[in-house]
Amino acid sequence: MALPTQADDFPAWYQEVVRGADLAENSLARGTMVIKPYGYAIWEAIRDALDKRFKETDPPHENLYFPMFIPQRLLEREKEHVEGFAPEVAVVSPAGGEELAEPLIVRPTSETIIWDAYSRWIQSYRDLPLLYNQWANVVRWELRPRLLLRTTEFLWQEGHTAHETKDEAWAEALQMLEVYRQVAEDVMAMPVHLGRKTASERFPGAEETFPIEALMRDGKALQAGTSHYLGQNFARAYDVQFLGRDGEQHLAYATSWGVSTRLVGGLIMAHGDDKGLRLPPAVAPHQVVIVPIYRSDDEQDRTVSAAKAMAAEWGAAGIRVRVDERDERPGFKFADHELRGVPIRIEVGPRDLEASQVTVVRRDSGEKTPVAMDAIAGRLPGLLDEIQRSLFDDAVAFRAANTHEASSYDELRSLIADQGGFVSGAWCGDAACEAQVKADTKATIRFLPLEPEDPGAPCVVCGRPGIDTATWAIAY
Amino acid sequence: MALPTQADDFPAWYQEVVRGADLAENSLARGTMVIKPYGYAIWEAIRDALDKRFKETDPPHENLYFPMFIPQRLLEREKEHVEGFAPEVAVVSPAGGEELAEPLIVRPTSETIIWDAYSRWIQSYRDLPLLYNQWANVVRWELRPRLLLRTTEFLWQEGHTAHETKDEAWAEALQMLEVYRQVAEDVMAMPVHLGRKTASERFPGAEETFPIEALMRDGKALQAGTSHYLGQNFARAYDVQFLGRDGEQHLAYATSWGVSTRLVGGLIMAHGDDKGLRLPPAVAPHQVVIVPIYRSDDEQDRTVSAAKAMAAEWGAAGIRVRVDERDERPGFKFADHELRGVPIRIEVGPRDLEASQVTVVRRDSGEKTPVAMDAIAGRLPGLLDEIQRSLFDDAVAFRAANTHEASSYDELRSLIADQGGFVSGAWCGDAACEAQVKADTKATIRFLPLEPEDPGAPCVVCGRPGIDTATWAIAY
Repeated sequence: MALPTQADDFPAWYQEVVRGADLAENSLARGTMVIKPYGYAIWEAIRDALDKRFKETDPPHENLYFPMFIPQRLLEREKEHVEGFAPEVAVVSPAGGEELAEPLIVRPTSETIIWDAYSRWIQSYRDLPLLYNQWANVVRWELRPRLLLRTTEFLWQEGHTAHETKDEAWAEALQMLEVYRQVAEDVMAMPVHLGRKTASERFPGAEETFPIEALMRDGKALQAGTSHYLGQNFARAYDVQFLGRDGEQHLAYATSWGVSTRLVGGLIMAHGDDKGLRLPPAVAPHQVVIVPIYRSDDEQDRTVSAAKAMAAEWGAAGIRVRVDERDERPGFKFADHELRGVPIRIEVGPRDLEASQVTVVRRDSGEKTPVAMDAIAGRLPGLLDEIQRSLFDDAVAFRAANTHEASSYDELRSLIADQGGFVSGAWCGDAACEAQVKADTKATIRFLPLEPEDPGAPCVVCGRPGIDTATWAIAY
Repeated sequence: MALPTQADDFPAWYQEVVRGADLAENSLARGTMVIKPYGYAIWEAIRDALDKRFKETDPPHENLYFPMFIPQRLLEREKEHVEGFAPEVAVVSPAGGEELAEPLIVRPTSETIIWDAYSRWIQSYRDLPLLYNQWANVVRWELRPRLLLRTTEFLWQEGHTAHETKDEAWAEALQMLEVYRQVAEDVMAMPVHLGRKTASERFPGAEETFPIEALMRDGKALQAGTSHYLGQNFARAYDVQFLGRDGEQHLAYATSWGVSTRLVGGLIMAHGDDKGLRLPPAVAPHQVVIVPIYRSDDEQDRTVSAAKAMAAEWGAAGIRVRVDERDERPGFKFADHELRGVPIRIEVGPRDLEASQVTVVRRDSGEKTPVAMDAIAGRLPGLLDEIQRSLFDDAVAFRAANTHEASSYDELRSLIADQGGFVSGAWCGDAACEAQVKADTKATIRFLPLEPEDPGAPCVVCGRPGIDTATWAIAY
């Protein structure tokens, strides 16, 4: 299997890893994908980590499910929202004859149908807050689809909360941003910046969009998740009023927040190397693979049975372990497990058995160490933790090496063109300067810091006094 | 709240329980529903019980995800399948101008798109078996929708497996039927009959459909899940050939199997009584609710803090417990938790505190018992088990009391009309006799036994020699 190197052709490398590691493939309808079992198992691990944290907040979030068909008129109520999404929605009609009295769209996101329901569910401040989330598929017609990163249909979660006050909604949006940070960094080992989006990059209908932004190994940025403070826009559009503690009617405050199967694409590009995927143990479908090595039937019997005994023991201790008994040469298996990013490979040959040891190979570093058989079980949990941490540290170091500061427009342009990565500099807040950078370099402002930084410094584009420090990158 | 009695108006009772217990509600597009948090939590418990068992089979099943958009031409390849589903499919087209080169349908089930992919995934017997499942939403345009039982969009799992031999596929279909039985009986406490469907009731494209059939408390039957042996029909339609051990090309054998959110509707109707839901502890979102009872602020402080201490202790022991601190009268809370089917209610008042006891009320039997406070934690797990078993035993007894045998056509008709429930009798195997019973009584053959029973006995309809014992019922 000929994996292109990342340096030679990163897009081809990505495509080949997705294919070769059996993560996903294109399906028949343009822009749709099949998420294959290995890719889906990674998504399940990310999903479970998120779901657990949603349910553990205080007060907890609960899951529910809204239909995917939304009457078109609902979409039209919030002006910015419809302008943002109308061009990419799919329209549905039943076959078998009957025409629909009103067109239905397939949800591109569910604020509209959910806030229409909230107008019936919310009467009094006693009904607040509503802290709901759903796991669902959504559809956005994509012109330039890309497996896992941008597909016509994708899987995601979307949280939709309603609150009595602005402060509470604002705190909720930031709380969920922190949950996303935890899952990105602590589970996926993918460092992210938390920030605010500029007006031009906000979710349609949001007053503030807080992203988590990650850096991929080709120096491009990936918006990996967003949490939105929606103010009273949706309450106004869907007439969600409640009787307040003061006896008056008020409009509810809203947030929404979502991450999707795009995270799996981010995981590949945040950690992968020229041999393929490198999976953090917390999301790896198989954390350990044991490869028995033999030349004769007798050796096969002995190494396979030793491998199975170890796998049974470690499996009972909660480690996800697989014995690779396929009828293939060891070299083929090694390359396959490297491509699939299995964190630890254990080789057991007849000589290992004689020496009562195994050979442990780390996927992250390639390091190969003999370990005594009676010590290995005790060593695995610590080794998995170490690999998890080392992948995170690697990614942090990569990001640091690919983050630069620009103090002039020439410098900004050359850093973006020559170095890639994140480039920060002062910004005056004018959308015209933002647009000029995009036109000249293709880079966009990925985020502003959560609190404005270094106001007054001269804007790197126009030289007028800046209001904040912006971070640019070319993004997926 | 005026819950109609089951005897007076079962459909109104059902509707009011679904509404009052906050399980689901109608959404805007005809036939679609919102699954509310309490209903969704029940579905999550059922889903997790199934998912765990799918993954624990040997060899295990794996989850994956196929797109919901299927090119219409794919549906047309398997003749019976398209005839079965074409009338109820929804067709989609992108908005924003562009017309599609070929129409896409929203999946009513995914055999077509999955077997099209299997034609690329399966080359050799070494690629078999494929044991895959997906959790997904599907759409079937319904003319007579009913919350949770029959909705235009519903959530389900669909397993799709491919095998080398007929025997293996047949065994797989039965293995998954047994998984469905375990979840229905051991988790949902809902006894089910396993059997075979007659040709007229089979899944379109199946050679054999194995249902689990349950009895609801109005005497109607519910098809709660189905496992299909599909023979080589889909392999033929989608050209899924593999190189066999004999060096020849062969068509693969298929199964598919599914259960849906309809199970939640079945749960309601299998256990509910005139006070509302009765939930088996294994699927109850709250297994125990503690209601503090007080008249003064001081009493409130003491009973609420005692309730919270107990809840913290039991929660840590893995019991799903909730303290009802709402500002409502105890009588309101009791009725609410009865409506929602919470298995155990604990009342704690000031006199209970003085006597170091609590009052335990079982939802299944209504039985009220004082229990010493230092004994209650130890008693709860056993009590929950007892309630789980007792709901199952109740349902088994109800089914036994509502199962009859008919030895003549007059008897069959009067049993169906007067008694309801399951009515069994000999059947000659002729579809004409089956159709006549349906025309005369609205009852259909719900199942034949897994192995033919009592062949030779005279058909209850026509008197000719029977080939099997059929079981009729009026069904949802």
